[in-house]
Amino acid sequence: MKRYAQLAATLGERIEQGLYRPGDRLPSVRSLSEEHGVSISTVQQAYRVLEDAGLVEPRPKSGFFVPERRPQPAMPAMTRPAQRPVDVSQWDQVLEQVRHAPGGDFVQLGRGTPDIASPSLKPLQRAMANAARRTDLQALGYEGLQGSLALREQISRLMLDSGCQVPPSETIITTGCQEALAITLRAICQPGDIVAIDSPSFHGAMQTLKAQGLKALEIPTDPTNGVSLEALELAMEQWPVKLILLTPNCNNPLGYIMPDARKRALLSLAQRYDVPILEDDVYGELAYAYPRPRSIKSFDSDDRVLLASSFSKTVAPGLRTGWVVPGRYLDRILHLKYIASGTCAPQPQMALAEFVGGGHYEPHIRRMRAQYQRHRDLMTDWVARYFPEGTRATRPQGGFMLWVELHPQFDSVRLNRELQAERVQVAAGSIFSAAGKYRNCLRMNYSNRDLPRIEEAVRKVGACATRLVEELHAEAGEDVALA
Amino acid sequence: MKRYAQLAATLGERIEQGLYRPGDRLPSVRSLSEEHGVSISTVQQAYRVLEDAGLVEPRPKSGFFVPERRPQPAMPAMTRPAQRPVDVSQWDQVLEQVRHAPGGDFVQLGRGTPDIASPSLKPLQRAMANAARRTDLQALGYEGLQGSLALREQISRLMLDSGCQVPPSETIITTGCQEALAITLRAICQPGDIVAIDSPSFHGAMQTLKAQGLKALEIPTDPTNGVSLEALELAMEQWPVKLILLTPNCNNPLGYIMPDARKRALLSLAQRYDVPILEDDVYGELAYAYPRPRSIKSFDSDDRVLLASSFSKTVAPGLRTGWVVPGRYLDRILHLKYIASGTCAPQPQMALAEFVGGGHYEPHIRRMRAQYQRHRDLMTDWVARYFPEGTRATRPQGGFMLWVELHPQFDSVRLNRELQAERVQVAAGSIFSAAGKYRNCLRMNYSNRDLPRIEEAVRKVGACATRLVEELHAEAGEDVALA
Repeated sequence: MKRYAQLAATLGERIEQGLYRPGDRLPSVRSLSEEHGVSISTVQQAYRVLEDAGLVEPRPKSGFFVPERRPQPAMPAMTRPAQRPVDVSQWDQVLEQVRHAPGGDFVQLGRGTPDIASPSLKPLQRAMANAARRTDLQALGYEGLQGSLALREQISRLMLDSGCQVPPSETIITTGCQEALAITLRAICQPGDIVAIDSPSFHGAMQTLKAQGLKALEIPTDPTNGVSLEALELAMEQWPVKLILLTPNCNNPLGYIMPDARKRALLSLAQRYDVPILEDDVYGELAYAYPRPRSIKSFDSDDRVLLASSFSKTVAPGLRTGWVVPGRYLDRILHLKYIASGTCAPQPQMALAEFVGGGHYEPHIRRMRAQYQRHRDLMTDWVARYFPEGTRATRPQGGFMLWVELHPQFDSVRLNRELQAERVQVAAGSIFSAAGKYRNCLRMNYSNRDLPRIEEAVRKVGACATRLVEELHAEAGEDVALA
Repeated sequence: MKRYAQLAATLGERIEQGLYRPGDRLPSVRSLSEEHGVSISTVQQAYRVLEDAGLVEPRPKSGFFVPERRPQPAMPAMTRPAQRPVDVSQWDQVLEQVRHAPGGDFVQLGRGTPDIASPSLKPLQRAMANAARRTDLQALGYEGLQGSLALREQISRLMLDSGCQVPPSETIITTGCQEALAITLRAICQPGDIVAIDSPSFHGAMQTLKAQGLKALEIPTDPTNGVSLEALELAMEQWPVKLILLTPNCNNPLGYIMPDARKRALLSLAQRYDVPILEDDVYGELAYAYPRPRSIKSFDSDDRVLLASSFSKTVAPGLRTGWVVPGRYLDRILHLKYIASGTCAPQPQMALAEFVGGGHYEPHIRRMRAQYQRHRDLMTDWVARYFPEGTRATRPQGGFMLWVELHPQFDSVRLNRELQAERVQVAAGSIFSAAGKYRNCLRMNYSNRDLPRIEEAVRKVGACATRLVEELHAEAGEDVALA
């Protein structure tokens, strides 16, 4: 790294860590030159980089300042999905997103990839290589159907942080969380059954409903508190709901953490109607506040909650290693696991058991939480700066996804089409609704550590969105003029 | 390795390679002592090892001889399953077998693990370690939904050997062949549908029928020529068969290769009744004769055959990397693949593309074919030697599984229970039938290179089987006496 870039990185980190606060004057060029033993022009170059990144602001004759934080975008309101069971659509849009591996000069803000370039993952890469070369050849053979005991023991230990005491014998390792969701839904539901689901919701879960011939009953959801219990109760009164499926912690895509009182209330509602809950905890470990939030499973007194999770968001998706705690459905889900893909690959399980058991997981996850929280603030700021006026955005409490709401007639599918030429993609909001609602919303991933690249991509998205919103205003103006 | 053991291994290899043939006199102790520069007692010790392994036979005052090959066991007759659609059972017995990882002092003859200890797999282990450590971090991220293009290109190349020209764009990588079977069945069949299947047949496919609520119509199958076309046609006349599912090459568990003429006849039967064929080719590359047999897919003129396969039997099951060529069902199966487990793990795909592309696959597979053929002869010989009189056994043309048929009242499930104490397991025949037929049969794996250990295990199985058959005879005798 060049000297000026190094200095820019150091200063940028101090600003992001809050050492200098919005409005603060930054050290003069001369004092930095002395402090770091570099030339005046190196410092000036460093400040130019920071200025380009929006982290500092020059004021004539006064030096460099931390910019006043832009007013944050307003939060989206409670969502209002169709309150009846519907068949799931939108597969084409999801396929568009998952068909090709990310790579090259393309900036994929639409997919759920965490930061896999963190140095805290080096021990994982070593563990993977070690597992591959082991002379007992365990990596090449078959694992037991329930998965590696060593890994299940580590998972039991990790789950204690969410208030869950689950012995390894009650966990089944799966090929990512997606397999856990698919087999759990299959274990509980028959084609035609109705599943109540938070809305917006993870497209993988929703497409699973589609593939299994289930109907989605989308429940209005608040971007701060989660699914509306009132709406859920009304829905359960009216429809024969077979299962409640939701992501209460660091929700994807809204980023909220459901307060514990509401988790308990949800659980007693499920008890009253005798309906099981499938809890997706895949982002739960990435809550910015410590300790991590409790899972609904941790309040579960009558074995009604099935918990699905994975290492895809906390460690690396390429491992394809998830798990399910299926409670009373263990036998049936073990059968479905066997059908789905046989036993799981041993090598990633060995590597993860070594990574977690060797004490590398906790420092890694602490680092990721802090990084994602910083990035959330930056991404929020970029949206305020580059997106059209009136844009709303969530305030995620964990994870690495921002949900953005635009003009009611905005079309994020068209936005993505126009962004093709710019080599940027976002996740169109409509894939998070069974019925294709939220087309005026989009989701952006802020995990990536290459901030200038991400900011540039967000700037492009913002510029394109601004143009499309202006068109909408112009059309509306024409309509008014014609009327 | 001790000197005598080394000498025993060398001599054993020569015998197995056919350098000395049954009935031949082996070199004298004195000449071997001179040839190898070892003591007389070392040679004697080596001969003792070979004698224990049944590879040599001492004749008083004449020296050591290669034993005359025992008369081969007779082949089992054409199978006679129930010729009506039935629900699949036997999950408990399958679970017993896959619940735990093989290991320790336990000799698992029941599972389908190939020889993963072959030195020809060293380059694969290196490729796996390389993939894990790559600085572009590809191993940690998401792959595209259809799977690695580099690997699909290699698969296209390999499939040419079976007479198939399939471009990479028509292949989908799956989590082992099991996932390929599960999603294909789901793409084509609805609960209640009837699937015609060779009998006996792979338990994973059969359990998939069970999980998906499909009915199995087991078709009589000849251990030399495969599924009876006459019986299949009768069945298709009588029942609304939705799909034909079979393993025509190096069949599991019977080991036959269906002659090409019969493959063509099967295909025209499927055309006449307009039914798709799901062809499992997972053992096809392991045919002992060169070139490998053609797949039914290679004769497919109207895109009716779906081919499922994997590297689990040819390379290593721990990679969990299979594929499906879904023909006209590509879009639907791509959706079901996404639902089943999302995208596949990139690292094994990278490693396999390197292993195959680097020219390591062909020598490995040649070596495995030769090894498995030698082991087939040994295992057949052991069955002739250690199993009760009247035992029948297949004559596999590829793969590494021997199917053994005992007294009609024999109970292989009980056999397995009794073998627990001996730390040996076989696959009970009943798991290969939807309705639990073939309980008097069993399947044994002969892939393992540790021949003395395997022979010892087969000896234990044979002794236990002999005891059980004697009990049956005694009971029958009593019955006669009582009558």
